[in-house]
Amino acid sequence: MTLDKAALVAVDWGTTNLRVAVLDADGVVLDKRSSDKGMGSLAPNEFEPVLLALIDDLLQDGAVLPVICSGMVGARQGWQEAPYAKAPCAASGGASALRVATQDARVDVWILPGVQQDKPADVMRGEETQIAGFLAKFPKFDGVICLPGTHTKWVRISAEEIVSFQTYMTGEMFSLLSGQSVLRHSVGADAMDIAAFHEAVGDAMSRPQAVSSKLFSIRAETLLADLPQETARGRLSGYLLGLELAAARPYWLGMDVALVGDLALCGLYKDALEAQGCPSRIHDVSDLTVAGQWAAYLTIKDKL
Amino acid sequence: MTLDKAALVAVDWGTTNLRVAVLDADGVVLDKRSSDKGMGSLAPNEFEPVLLALIDDLLQDGAVLPVICSGMVGARQGWQEAPYAKAPCAASGGASALRVATQDARVDVWILPGVQQDKPADVMRGEETQIAGFLAKFPKFDGVICLPGTHTKWVRISAEEIVSFQTYMTGEMFSLLSGQSVLRHSVGADAMDIAAFHEAVGDAMSRPQAVSSKLFSIRAETLLADLPQETARGRLSGYLLGLELAAARPYWLGMDVALVGDLALCGLYKDALEAQGCPSRIHDVSDLTVAGQWAAYLTIKDKL
Repeated sequence: MTLDKAALVAVDWGTTNLRVAVLDADGVVLDKRSSDKGMGSLAPNEFEPVLLALIDDLLQDGAVLPVICSGMVGARQGWQEAPYAKAPCAASGGASALRVATQDARVDVWILPGVQQDKPADVMRGEETQIAGFLAKFPKFDGVICLPGTHTKWVRISAEEIVSFQTYMTGEMFSLLSGQSVLRHSVGADAMDIAAFHEAVGDAMSRPQAVSSKLFSIRAETLLADLPQETARGRLSGYLLGLELAAARPYWLGMDVALVGDLALCGLYKDALEAQGCPSRIHDVSDLTVAGQWAAYLTIKDKL
Repeated sequence: MTLDKAALVAVDWGTTNLRVAVLDADGVVLDKRSSDKGMGSLAPNEFEPVLLALIDDLLQDGAVLPVICSGMVGARQGWQEAPYAKAPCAASGGASALRVATQDARVDVWILPGVQQDKPADVMRGEETQIAGFLAKFPKFDGVICLPGTHTKWVRISAEEIVSFQTYMTGEMFSLLSGQSVLRHSVGADAMDIAAFHEAVGDAMSRPQAVSSKLFSIRAETLLADLPQETARGRLSGYLLGLELAAARPYWLGMDVALVGDLALCGLYKDALEAQGCPSRIHDVSDLTVAGQWAAYLTIKDKL
């Protein structure tokens, strides 16, 4: 095992779990671990023991291992609050990372800040590190990065900076409506009718307010006309994404859009954007977060 | 006790509970009972015993007590499916009520149908009986009845008929977003800033698609600017209601709108409509469902 070459522990600590990557001095990933002990279930004094238990085999007496953390671990309810950087700003938070005092002297822990925007008010914690990773791979990128997910982010990038961004709750709304509302009886679990999806995106974009009434129609058509579950799923997804794309138009219209994230979800965004005449590219780049953490490490290495 | 004068048992049997009113031969309410044994928790063969247990003291050997049921009890998963009447149609479903075969000969049970609309697809079960009760009190009403609730219904009434209607999931969306999404940390439990509510209604009506991005802004402003909980609640409510009112405009523009339902919720609708130059009236009429069941009883009495 080459773990004695560990030079950096990169921790992506979200609300529901944490993912650890162990890197050597060249930034090569030696090992990965994870745990379900997310920030949401921990009190501030529990973060250090949870981390140490996960990397205990890497620690040596007399040596200090740098640890870079990103994500919700730096939120107010996290290990320690790492204040937001203010957009426009560099995606990599290395320069303003927060050093955390630890009980154990064998680790040197840093938390990367999130990014805030005052008007319209918006925040991110974690995505900025993915973006830093993306920009490490494509340093000349100028355009818009869209990160689809529970809370999809649209982010304008110019001159290697986050210029502005906007968050949409589309993924969370889809999850709540398909899983917990009256529509759960209509919407199937997996398959989606892509034609129904496209039609719904178009409907929502041309008449956004109608979404409000079209949602219940999905249920009614199930009752009255045995609407297939995959059609219902396509419509629900399409209405919500159409509403998002109508609002996010200034972000994608005439722009070079890079889609980053879950491939299936990126595919839906790509198809919907294409139907609006907007070409986009899905960047199948794994380990973006680790690449961003590594970029931050290079910035703060001299302080270690 | 005057319960030996019972001439009708009126049952409002919804998904989560049932409400029973006992009426005399003049339609006067003698007594009320309720239970949490809603349609959602019962198998078809459990409805009769649940009903009998609740009205056992009213039953006499050799006598037959009429029972009129409305609501989800007539759904496919209910006691027995009572097919929908098709709009345009009378609100009172007395003429097409479904007689249910019972084990116990001391009751004669009827289920009132819901109402369906083919295009746009929509359904109601229960509201039609409230409307029938409303029309029993205001037989000359011509205009729009709005019944705010989990699934708000907008219903066009003309010549004592339901002409068309549209359902909005606004209440359910508010409940899911305020109780279970990331916004639950921002939105308070009770008080609402009414100025924030009005501003949000206006925002949503003038730019409906923006709702999609403004939702997360509520969370961001909480984090960045300590947005008061009552302001957050007002905004969330306003955005969702604004989206509904923008879509429902053909229902209320230039119409005589009657608001029927929970008084506080009707008050919000009234305020929002007024800001759009649409006068409306809250009808503080209790026991509408019982009045509608009584109207149905009068229609089918001769068949008993």
